[in-house]
Amino acid sequence: MAKIDLDKLQARSGSIYPGNLAGQMDGRTSLRAGDAGGLTQFGANIIILAPGAKSSLRHWHLNEDEFVMVTQGRVMLHMDAGEEEMTVGECAAFPAGVADGHCFINQSDEEARFLVIGTRAPHEVATYSDIDMKVVLGEGNPVFTRHDGTPLPDDI
Amino acid sequence: MAKIDLDKLQARSGSIYPGNLAGQMDGRTSLRAGDAGGLTQFGANIIILAPGAKSSLRHWHLNEDEFVMVTQGRVMLHMDAGEEEMTVGECAAFPAGVADGHCFINQSDEEARFLVIGTRAPHEVATYSDIDMKVVLGEGNPVFTRHDGTPLPDDI
Repeated sequence: MAKIDLDKLQARSGSIYPGNLAGQMDGRTSLRAGDAGGLTQFGANIIILAPGAKSSLRHWHLNEDEFVMVTQGRVMLHMDAGEEEMTVGECAAFPAGVADGHCFINQSDEEARFLVIGTRAPHEVATYSDIDMKVVLGEGNPVFTRHDGTPLPDDI
Repeated sequence: MAKIDLDKLQARSGSIYPGNLAGQMDGRTSLRAGDAGGLTQFGANIIILAPGAKSSLRHWHLNEDEFVMVTQGRVMLHMDAGEEEMTVGECAAFPAGVADGHCFINQSDEEARFLVIGTRAPHEVATYSDIDMKVVLGEGNPVFTRHDGTPLPDDI
């Protein structure tokens, strides 16, 4: 059957961010539910945020649509216009190419979870809104640079 | 902001199924959350099933991955191997091209809801498992035929 046993999935932690930025992702783990079910066209991940943890650095995607539904607790959605709380059952959508970065921060005292769906484009650029960084994703390892494509500072 | 006000979405009912089959979808409505948020690469719909209602006739997709999370109540997932209950927070995945049809039936006495994500392929074929029917989806109206591509009987 196609039902996914979430209890059997290994929670993944860690970050692909370079240098000191990786530590900003402490307290965030994820369950790759879609991968476990054999999906390849989009990711379907359950993000688990400990109190104080954030989903990512604030960013937007050039080529990939993204959709979120909160499934436990409450998170704060941060975008250019400010912050907005989201609770269980509430949804948000981030169309590809809209240059308004987003991230979710658990500003509560309880664990929070949300389901995130993101298309898997063969070539992708994610641009970070609050720091001078972008990442190019495709074949091979992610390549992080400044917004203008030049190397990041060594002490990032 | 990217948050979607689900209370403002019009619940859609009805069916594209031909003839008498359309009536089998009574009690099923949906909220097109992804569309409301400007997404185009995949659908993100909340399916609302009254007691006794079903999500669709049992079918599988040739080109589109599909992912489901139950968000309210309980539904029964029907596939070739039989039926399996799913409750709030449980997930299922249906990879493109796997010829094992699925549908969800609300066999409880309470309303049930689930979120369903499905890729939007430019060309798609859905094959129905329990009746001799398939549908080709692309530009223009859906085209329903028998599995072998010949016309459906007039009294379907």
